[in-house]
Amino acid sequence: MNNGKHYSKGSSMPQLPKDNKLVLYSMRFCPFAQRVHLVLDAKNIPYHTVYINLTEKPEWLVQKSPLMKVPALEIPGEAEPLIESLVICDYLDEKYPQVKLHSTDPLRKARDKILIERFSSVIGPMYQIYTFSASDVTDAVRQVATGLQLYEDELRKRGTKFFGGNDRPGMVDLMLWPWTERSHIITLISDKYELDTERFAKLIKWRDDMANDPAVKGSFLSAENHLKFLETRRTGSPNYDILVNQAKKMRTS
Amino acid sequence: MNNGKHYSKGSSMPQLPKDNKLVLYSMRFCPFAQRVHLVLDAKNIPYHTVYINLTEKPEWLVQKSPLMKVPALEIPGEAEPLIESLVICDYLDEKYPQVKLHSTDPLRKARDKILIERFSSVIGPMYQIYTFSASDVTDAVRQVATGLQLYEDELRKRGTKFFGGNDRPGMVDLMLWPWTERSHIITLISDKYELDTERFAKLIKWRDDMANDPAVKGSFLSAENHLKFLETRRTGSPNYDILVNQAKKMRTS
Repeated sequence: MNNGKHYSKGSSMPQLPKDNKLVLYSMRFCPFAQRVHLVLDAKNIPYHTVYINLTEKPEWLVQKSPLMKVPALEIPGEAEPLIESLVICDYLDEKYPQVKLHSTDPLRKARDKILIERFSSVIGPMYQIYTFSASDVTDAVRQVATGLQLYEDELRKRGTKFFGGNDRPGMVDLMLWPWTERSHIITLISDKYELDTERFAKLIKWRDDMANDPAVKGSFLSAENHLKFLETRRTGSPNYDILVNQAKKMRTS
Repeated sequence: MNNGKHYSKGSSMPQLPKDNKLVLYSMRFCPFAQRVHLVLDAKNIPYHTVYINLTEKPEWLVQKSPLMKVPALEIPGEAEPLIESLVICDYLDEKYPQVKLHSTDPLRKARDKILIERFSSVIGPMYQIYTFSASDVTDAVRQVATGLQLYEDELRKRGTKFFGGNDRPGMVDLMLWPWTERSHIITLISDKYELDTERFAKLIKWRDDMANDPAVKGSFLSAENHLKFLETRRTGSPNYDILVNQAKKMRTS
């Protein structure tokens, strides 16, 4: 990830060096875009990042991503970018097999894809909490915990450090990470909610191990910073560059 | 597909021969389950089918498919079945590569997966029409046509008989088929709605070619039969065995 600002309405198209690198159209706080950053970083694939203001989208974006979506991955020499985070990540895993993220066993790979799909049972209530739209926060937190049980059980069953083995995070680990990184927001919003340390012992250890992985560090933002952005979004005018401005302020103070 | 009845509440678990074959838990009129039938048939993989009454599910289903969903694919020797139609189909394509359905080129495969994903823009309004829940049928039909434009354009661009080439249907073809098979229902419901034969010339030709494919014939039901089932569903008590009963009646008359 770079520290650049988000391109918005009225901006000119970024002039990138003609160095044949992939270009990722992203948004700094988007968990789906982060999935692609994680895979690119885990595989040490060099790429450019172009951040997009999703509220006031630049007019030229339609030339780069016809559906105006992020994440979108531009491939040198290809007219149309790839979209959909899971499609992009699977593509990268097949195209750059040096660091393999999916299992090479079809059945294990299929089970891993089901685990990734079923994480929507965690993402849904989490999203409600983060966007302050949950009608009953206690109930939403309970739903998150119910959803997480499957992952705690699965880690116990596998008996490995990561879902992808003992050496390093695999595809399941990386696809689940963006929401894990944001999970501490719940505690920041209300200190009533802490994950049960016994019930989720494996997942908590996993979260710590993940946070120390170099690929994860590449796109890591603290829950405090995620929350800062979400609070600007809550007001109706999200400040995509809140961290850029903060860095500037720190430099000039 | 077999011609058996759907297992429902109170039924005993089916006793299948111990012949090491895959078992597909299915519902005769479910388009997502049909995707798996199509892939199994296209690859000539032998399997058993167990049809499930989705309104009055058999109690034992939870032992076979913990989320009580169909399609679910039971693999001999494995405790838990695979679920999610696309996950199952991708698994079968990797596990049984003799007849390859996905492209071996990662970029082409990724683009094909996006085509399959984006078909939801057709499935959504089609489903509203079929279930008689569209508030404005003319508008829903317009949405279907708008969604189909991408596929007409893509077939023209590829210049092949099928999305997967000239020889035989590939993964895109098979994943789109179940809704194509049902598309004539719209005309049965109201003869006002016919696909514009010039605008969709390639897709109409494709539909005819697909209908002649042996794998497609294996699970084919006429739009009239699909509609018969949908009409029983509309009354609130879907008759899953409507074709079984019909066959019986024909035999005894």
